[in-house]
Parts: sequence; structure tokens; C-alpha cells
Amino acid sequence: MVHKRNTKTADRHFASSPKQQLRVFAPASVANVACGYDVLGFAVEAPGDEVAVKEIGKAGLVITKIEGDAGKLPLNPEQNSITAPVLKYLKDIQCGVGFEFELVKNVPFSGGMGSSSASSVAGVYAVNELLGKPLSRRELLPFAMEGERIACGTAHADNVAAALLGGFVIVRSSSPLDVVQIDYPSRLHCTLVHPEVTIRTRDSREALPEKVYLKDAVSQWGNVAGLIAGLTKGDFDLISRSLEDHLIEPVRSAFIPSYEDVKMAALQAGALGCNISGSGPSMFALTTSKRTAEKCAAAMQAVFEKLGIESQTHVSRINNRGPRVIS
Amino acid sequence: MVHKRNTKTADRHFASSPKQQLRVFAPASVANVACGYDVLGFAVEAPGDEVAVKEIGKAGLVITKIEGDAGKLPLNPEQNSITAPVLKYLKDIQCGVGFEFELVKNVPFSGGMGSSSASSVAGVYAVNELLGKPLSRRELLPFAMEGERIACGTAHADNVAAALLGGFVIVRSSSPLDVVQIDYPSRLHCTLVHPEVTIRTRDSREALPEKVYLKDAVSQWGNVAGLIAGLTKGDFDLISRSLEDHLIEPVRSAFIPSYEDVKMAALQAGALGCNISGSGPSMFALTTSKRTAEKCAAAMQAVFEKLGIESQTHVSRINNRGPRVIS
Repeated sequence: MVHKRNTKTADRHFASSPKQQLRVFAPASVANVACGYDVLGFAVEAPGDEVAVKEIGKAGLVITKIEGDAGKLPLNPEQNSITAPVLKYLKDIQCGVGFEFELVKNVPFSGGMGSSSASSVAGVYAVNELLGKPLSRRELLPFAMEGERIACGTAHADNVAAALLGGFVIVRSSSPLDVVQIDYPSRLHCTLVHPEVTIRTRDSREALPEKVYLKDAVSQWGNVAGLIAGLTKGDFDLISRSLEDHLIEPVRSAFIPSYEDVKMAALQAGALGCNISGSGPSMFALTTSKRTAEKCAAAMQAVFEKLGIESQTHVSRINNRGPRVIS
Repeated sequence: MVHKRNTKTADRHFASSPKQQLRVFAPASVANVACGYDVLGFAVEAPGDEVAVKEIGKAGLVITKIEGDAGKLPLNPEQNSITAPVLKYLKDIQCGVGFEFELVKNVPFSGGMGSSSASSVAGVYAVNELLGKPLSRRELLPFAMEGERIACGTAHADNVAAALLGGFVIVRSSSPLDVVQIDYPSRLHCTLVHPEVTIRTRDSREALPEKVYLKDAVSQWGNVAGLIAGLTKGDFDLISRSLEDHLIEPVRSAFIPSYEDVKMAALQAGALGCNISGSGPSMFALTTSKRTAEKCAAAMQAVFEKLGIESQTHVSRINNRGPRVIS
């Protein structure tokens, strides 16, 4: 899947970019998307992580600063989601150049918004840009997944692929990895609400049953089929009918206080659908306009507020480009 | 869902068609389509059932003749898949006109090729045409499903909707019924092979487990998502990769002698994918040309022949129009 360079002096060809440093934005993302557990994901315009990467005169990676993580992220390059993918990438392309990293962490940890994916994508995308793009964006995927493996214990592609490629993605298969981008209506907007509640992805994953009723699985893939058809046709009504989850939502929503009330608030405010973002506690709503997305944000936040739970809201279009160089 | 006529003298408005009799063809269909158990279906150009319908001077339905059923189908209108939907339809639209039916049965019973659906669709479509189309084609669906209920014990929509609407259909939900038509590449061809092996749909359904592993269900909806995306994009390679079934095929293929060899023969002959048609024993292969479809037919038939099992093969494009008036 990844193009291997055969020359032993490969690193001479790198650093052909005139820039020696870059600042990159990589987006948060919503995995699962109601019915598509472990299979669907999309990227948003906000929030996102920012990373500044600079070439240094010697081999190796250094993280000099992380803002917004309350001191929680490791500075050891092998253990950090920004740099672990870069280490693997540099080894694979046989490049001996070293880099210094500064991260501004805007996507909350363990929020279900693809926090580790945003960092992983930002890091490896920035370095690949600085080196003059030896690999295509798609070829960066297996490396970016390394950051997910470090953060979550499994190298899953739903958030990473969405953050890296932008738009809506299907992870048709994890092994072998097969990621497909699909069309979606450009009017689609997303509301993300992140309540100040802690759930560890691993806990949330372990709560899921090992087996499910075949009839429920059938409902689920009926909705998956409907959602893909709705997105590619631009049929908002079909998208709305398909944003249902009979298997994962009943289990995971138990970790989110007043989940049903928040969801109902979003639907009453005009959302096409509302569900758990990734493994939660963040929740997403999809709408056909920015105005409705803002109404959903306010309505959802108000429910959490009544419980005395603070929350952050984000409203944006679907991100159609993935990471980008911002300076 | 069904438009209800409010007038008590509704039947005066019927029979506005200049014709007093019609001959209609309704197609066989492939349900499940590998990964889409109970959710996906498509219609083919051949084989199909033919029904001749004639108005008679009194209320009630009469089946005068059935060819090709070896005397197996009941002539009682309430028990026959052609007429049971028509009885329900006439009652619903409050029409007192009576009809006489002759059926030519070309779709084998219990073959997994939507035999009862073809008859049901043919009957109700023909009568609706004769009456000057009081209901739209889509509105006929719940009635046509009645024939499926009589034949199989459940009123399932995957075959019926494909046969009635043509093309590829998603049954997003059975209750409430939600059927979605999707685009597909016009080059797509289908090979159907029906071996002389008997499986009752009920037996095949009962062999399925009540519960399945969540991880297998995830693989399945990954493939469903991939297949819908592949069909709507016209991406043959994605269609091919997605035509996989990890849940139903392992159970149902056991009822089909040398299933793996037949499948392998189709794939080696160039099929995008090959799997069980409906609940079997028929098998289908999808290809990008008529020539490859014919090669698949010969290769698949040859494997059954080696076992001394006779089989009928059919090669056609995907049927994009459903039933049609032939005279």
C-alpha cells in the first residue's frame, strides 16, 4: 500500500520544499455516524489541532511544546500521537531528517471527536509537506493510524481517514485496509457538543456486547445502505431516516447524562439526526444549514446546562479537504 | 402509504383503459446480493413470469390455467401468489370488477430467484394497468408483498420491490416499509444459475443463527456501505471487493453442492462477485459484460454437471423497468 523508496541515499531527495517550517491544521472528526459503527466517519471544519513543524539540523524528533493538553500528553516522541506516526513514516521512506514539533491541542481528549487522529494527521501531513510530498495523502493513512493505535490501543481508520482525506469516508475493511470516499451534499452542516464528562474509549468499547441479534444487525445495515444512498444522492430525508442505531447507541448512550433529552432537543431544533460522536461523550447533529446547526448547538447545550454540566459547541460545514497548511 | 379512494361508487371509474385484457411480464430477482441479507435486491431481464389478465362480467377472481408449475400451484385465488395480492388491492381501492388469470411460470419455485414475487408483481401490475392505473407503481408494493407472505410465510420486500420497481433496491426498513432505489452502472450484467436442488426458503431461513458476532456484523455493514457506494459511483472494483458475505453465506452455502467450486469457477471466468441468490440454491454472478456473464454461466454450469446436477442458466442485464405489458 505504501510506496517504498529503493535508494539508500533517499534522504538527499527530501527537503526539496523551499520552506523549512510549516504550520498545519488537522480537523476533528465524527466516527460511526449513528448506524456505521467502525465503518463510517466524517471530518468537520472546527475544531482542529494545529501543529508547527520545523526541520532541525540532526536526526530525531523533538516535541518542544504542547498547548491545551493540561500537561497530559507525553513529550516522548514514541508515545505521542503527533510524532509516533512520523517516526514510522520517516523509517519507511528511509529519511534521516529530524524535526521539532509544537502542538496546539484544540480537540478535547477522550471526547469522541477524533482527538488523537487530528494530532496524528497533523504531524505526518506537515512532515510530508515539508519533505516535498514524497508520499500521496492516501499513502499517509497507515502512518497516521499509528497515532490512533498509541492513543486507543487499536489502529482503527474511521477517524484518521476522515481527518486525513476530508469529507465522508467508509472503512469497508480494516484488514486489508480499504477506505472509500463518498459524495455528500455540500449544504450539510454539523453541530458538535462536547459535555464535560469523561469516558475512556476503551471502557466504552468494552461495554459493547460480543454478539448481537441478527435481526438488529439487519436493521443496522439497512440504515447503513440508506445513509450511503442518501449522502450520495443528496437526499436529506433519506439521510434523516437512516441516522438510526439499534446496536451501539443503546449501550453507549448510558455513559452520557440525559442523552435522550439532548438528542430530542437537537431533533426538535431541526436536526436531520443526532447521535453519539465516536464513543462519546460528544454528540453530533447533522443539519441542512448553518442556522439550524446553531439552533441545535444552543438547544443541546441548554439540556446539559440544566444538569449543571458545562459543554463546548462547534458548528461547521463538513470539512472537504482534510488537513491544510495555515502558514 | 396506499392512497385510499373515498367514493362509494369508485368502481364506476375503473376499466377506463381501452383494453379489456393484457399480457404482462414480471422479472425474477436476486435478493441479499452477498452482503445485503434482507436489505438488498435487484431485478433481471430473464427469466420472468407472464400473466394474461382479462376482465370478466362479474366480481371475483378466477385462475383458469397455470403453465410451467407441474401442477403445484393452488388455483384457489386466496392461496395463489398471483391473485392474493389482487384480492387485497381490489378490496383496498373498493373495486368490484372481476378478472380471469392465466399464468406462464418461468421462474422456478424455491429457487431463490424471487419466483413468488414475479407472480405477485405480474398479477397486481396487470390489473392496475387494466383499471387505468388508479395506483402508482410504488403504491402497489404492499399488495405485491402479500404474495410473498403467502408463499414464504413473511411479507418481505427485497425481491418484490426489485421485481416491481426494477434496478437495485434497498429495503432500509421493513416496518415501517421504506424502499429506496439506487443507481448502478448500466454495463452491469447478471448470470443466474439454478441447479436442480431443492431448498425451502423456510428451512434455509431457520438454519441462520439468532445472534452473530458484532465484529462480523461490522464487516458486513462495511461491505454493504462499499457495495452501495460502488454501485452509485459505477466503481466496478469497489463493487467486486464489497460482494462478500461473512454471515449468511457460510450457513446457506452448505445447502448447495460444491458451492465453493461453482463460485470459484465464476470468479475465474471474470465475475466481479458470485454468491447465493436469495436463499438459494440458485447462484448469481455479476459481470461488466454479456460476454463475461456467458462465460460465467458456462463455467458454473460445468461444475454442477460434473456432480451430475442439471442446471438452467440465464444471462441478462439488470432489469431497469420492472414489469411490462407485452401484449
